[in-house]
Amino acid sequence: MTGLSDISIAQAKTLLHIKEIAKKLKLVEDDLEMYGKYKAKLPLSLIDERKVNKHHLVLVTAITPTPAGEGKTTVSIGLTEGLNKIGKQALVVLREPSLGPVFGLKGGATGGGYSQVVPMEDINLHFTGDFNAIEKANNLLAALIDNNIQSKAQNLRIDPRTILWKRVIDMNDRALRDITIGLGGTSNGVPRQDSFNITPASEVMAILCMASSLENLKERLGNILIGFTFDKQPVFARDLKAENAMTILLKEAIKPNLVQTLEENPAIIHGGPFANIAQGTNTIIATKMGLSLSDYVVTEAGFGADLGAEKFLNIKSQFAKLNPKCVVLVLTIRALRHHGGAKSDAYNIPSLAKVAEGFKNLEKHIENIRKFNIEPVVAINSFVSDSEDEVNYIIKKCAGLGVHAVLSEGWAKGGEGTKKLAAAVVDVVENKATQYKPLYSWKLPIKEKIEIIAKEIYGAKKVVYGVQAELNLKRIDRLGFNDFAVCMAKTQKSFSDDDKLIGRPKDFTITVREIEIAAGAQFVIPILGKMSRMPGLPTIPASEHMTIDKNGVISGLS
Amino acid sequence: MTGLSDISIAQAKTLLHIKEIAKKLKLVEDDLEMYGKYKAKLPLSLIDERKVNKHHLVLVTAITPTPAGEGKTTVSIGLTEGLNKIGKQALVVLREPSLGPVFGLKGGATGGGYSQVVPMEDINLHFTGDFNAIEKANNLLAALIDNNIQSKAQNLRIDPRTILWKRVIDMNDRALRDITIGLGGTSNGVPRQDSFNITPASEVMAILCMASSLENLKERLGNILIGFTFDKQPVFARDLKAENAMTILLKEAIKPNLVQTLEENPAIIHGGPFANIAQGTNTIIATKMGLSLSDYVVTEAGFGADLGAEKFLNIKSQFAKLNPKCVVLVLTIRALRHHGGAKSDAYNIPSLAKVAEGFKNLEKHIENIRKFNIEPVVAINSFVSDSEDEVNYIIKKCAGLGVHAVLSEGWAKGGEGTKKLAAAVVDVVENKATQYKPLYSWKLPIKEKIEIIAKEIYGAKKVVYGVQAELNLKRIDRLGFNDFAVCMAKTQKSFSDDDKLIGRPKDFTITVREIEIAAGAQFVIPILGKMSRMPGLPTIPASEHMTIDKNGVISGLS
Repeated sequence: MTGLSDISIAQAKTLLHIKEIAKKLKLVEDDLEMYGKYKAKLPLSLIDERKVNKHHLVLVTAITPTPAGEGKTTVSIGLTEGLNKIGKQALVVLREPSLGPVFGLKGGATGGGYSQVVPMEDINLHFTGDFNAIEKANNLLAALIDNNIQSKAQNLRIDPRTILWKRVIDMNDRALRDITIGLGGTSNGVPRQDSFNITPASEVMAILCMASSLENLKERLGNILIGFTFDKQPVFARDLKAENAMTILLKEAIKPNLVQTLEENPAIIHGGPFANIAQGTNTIIATKMGLSLSDYVVTEAGFGADLGAEKFLNIKSQFAKLNPKCVVLVLTIRALRHHGGAKSDAYNIPSLAKVAEGFKNLEKHIENIRKFNIEPVVAINSFVSDSEDEVNYIIKKCAGLGVHAVLSEGWAKGGEGTKKLAAAVVDVVENKATQYKPLYSWKLPIKEKIEIIAKEIYGAKKVVYGVQAELNLKRIDRLGFNDFAVCMAKTQKSFSDDDKLIGRPKDFTITVREIEIAAGAQFVIPILGKMSRMPGLPTIPASEHMTIDKNGVISGLS
Repeated sequence: MTGLSDISIAQAKTLLHIKEIAKKLKLVEDDLEMYGKYKAKLPLSLIDERKVNKHHLVLVTAITPTPAGEGKTTVSIGLTEGLNKIGKQALVVLREPSLGPVFGLKGGATGGGYSQVVPMEDINLHFTGDFNAIEKANNLLAALIDNNIQSKAQNLRIDPRTILWKRVIDMNDRALRDITIGLGGTSNGVPRQDSFNITPASEVMAILCMASSLENLKERLGNILIGFTFDKQPVFARDLKAENAMTILLKEAIKPNLVQTLEENPAIIHGGPFANIAQGTNTIIATKMGLSLSDYVVTEAGFGADLGAEKFLNIKSQFAKLNPKCVVLVLTIRALRHHGGAKSDAYNIPSLAKVAEGFKNLEKHIENIRKFNIEPVVAINSFVSDSEDEVNYIIKKCAGLGVHAVLSEGWAKGGEGTKKLAAAVVDVVENKATQYKPLYSWKLPIKEKIEIIAKEIYGAKKVVYGVQAELNLKRIDRLGFNDFAVCMAKTQKSFSDDDKLIGRPKDFTITVREIEIAAGAQFVIPILGKMSRMPGLPTIPASEHMTIDKNGVISGLS
């Protein structure tokens, strides 16, 4: 254990030139598009479909998390270091951080302690500009929509009251949640109610993460449903001739980014949809790039396994024909105490009784993963407040379920602290993995897909649909979008749609308030409860504690 | 002459690796932070103050332009090629393009024909992310302001009705000119009227262009005046503890970008404020970087010499102690015809009478440049529609005023077409240059500075101040900002504040509607007439004609 901050540990590391990292993947300098000395973009031509399913894909997910998170990124990075330590060639594929949480409360997303990807400052800030490109493509389409409404000559007769497309900004900015635009007279557009979402919630982000090529990206962007005409006919981005310009803005963003871990192993970081309101995993292109270049690929999906992992398996893996061979379920003992009834001021106080009660949450996630024909491994993300009794209890209970549970000490020790976890994962991959199967086929009717997720994964008793949701279902049917995937928007704090139902809730009802269409991504998005697509800053934003000195050395970024 | 588009010419060029361009400046690979193979950022440590005033600075400006522009960027690049052709070591320092005009009407800003900087697509799109960084720093401050108003615990008691700080977006998006934010209840902030500006209009852009170091950037960002408390006390960005986080977002954006011209000469591109609403020239850091690395530096300032050049000389050069040795006044004969009374459908029809009448506009600009103790050279940016008579008339009339006027054929011929222009510039620099002098001292009272510009440069008879402007002057005085520079916001279409007064208007009155404060940039900004800080898209946006194929090859970008 050290008293050092994540950023101090990261800054103390002497980084290898990215050319040296690339060499480990048998890439030559000419394959790289460098962004400074420690970051590079990789051309899509490096994807080799023959290798994608020969190599081993490991998904890291978590139990239902506390607000601090369970440390999936830290465990993913640590596990990658551990796999390399025990003689496997492994790389990690992660999502890119959003600036909103970086300046807000949660911080960045580059791992922690001795399990980090570096340069952490650059990755947590603008990185290679992908989020900006997504934001600009999104907002160009928004400007084209309002310009079309304004213009007499080119008018598609879009009914301004039906516009579905929102502007985005990569910032926690609650004042933009509900706005009116186009005020001030005839030269300033047509007044209408509107709102900004945070950039990771953009359908452009969802599309980039689903796209298979530049051509496919363009087709998907053209397919975005932006609203309806006064005659109730759908209007798509292609009707505004927007898809080429949007693709032009994304021509570099489609390329995955290569960086390194603290132990100089390769890391690919690309795309960053949130997992509560979007699909919560990196791009298909990045995952396939990783599998083209490395025997083992460790990747993660956001929040609990009911969100990120469910979507990773039913949406991404099914669509891209990936075959994940092991799922690592990360937990912290503090989160088990929480699910066992501990209040936040008691999260760090050992309690075997609370852990035993909280274990039910883990047990449900284990059952869920097995429904996909995949064997889970449980990673106990080690904290100083853990008691030996608690750790042993979890290991023993998991053993009773036939599951390896391993203490993961990547935060404190890097790869040295995850060798046991790596060995458990290798055992599953080499000895227990067969062919994963998704839980539903995209071909099923929308309601059937929603109910499979709600009942099989969440454990709900029934699903009810609000008036708006029923209208939305009719619209989906009329537009011929019944075979889209279902990308649930649900709180990460509970299996249910009610934040307060911790542990393993039973006999609850899921209420689908409305169902959005992301026609370019090929999703429908059922909205369960109140889901904000624009976070706010906390009373004391993280930005207040950041400093930068005259040499550019940053502190306070986490 | 060719029938090729700018982008076709640019794409046909086999680019040198940016390492090879850097070698020409005696830089080694380790000095560079590469962004792909053809772009690099240069560390500020390469600035050598001893060399800055030993080397020769040449400013390219223009007569009062038509909407198509006079081709300052094309002439700046062409002149740089020509200087290298005649044996001088020269580089060009330019502004970065804004995405707004790229997708709107005007197109990018990378020159044209055989006088371009490349890779033109990348420079015109996100380039190295500087505009994005500026946008994010600007919008983080905006989010912090609204968050402070929302938060009971941290409240600075900012009166929401007094907030001066606007959000920005690098897009032509008229619907964001006049908006209301913070609607929808207590969790969504405090409702207030607001608006978005285009990113080049951000004070963060103005500040980046005035900053001398990372430390100075941070100090300036802290000095931004964002509004007032309910007790009418000023609130600065530093009161929100915003300046460190904003500087962190700008830590890479402060570094100038190196690219190449079509003839493989070095080009530095950095910063991009518009010249009608802001200071209209690249960063002081980039200009000094150029002068540290090259004997001759050619740079440009936006729109006509009454805007960009006036600000370059009174604000930038005075503040940074630069000594520009020659000013190149670019004109197109079509613009002289316009100033002589030709309507836009007759711009391409030769008319000696109209050129003779339009010459008065040029003559006033020549007189103005001489007021700064600098000798101008006139560059006639050659068009196929020019008649020999018109060209000869201009050359002869200029000779009568003791001014070299030279046909500049950089667009059609690259450096081969600008050797005569280069020779004329070298003659002024080597034989006629002394020490330039600014037209006013920053120490003068605000009204006096405004009147010097209005009378001496614009040729106005008098200046009147609106009620709001008089109130603003009292505020400036109360805050102790009388010694700030004056950065006029005025139409580019006329010497006056009235678009319709072409040629050399006389006996007109300038009306100062209001005066804004940019305390971080150390400007006051008198607003003359209606100046929009957010352009709109045209009926048929340029984006509609752009295409990108499956290999990423773009067409229709200009």
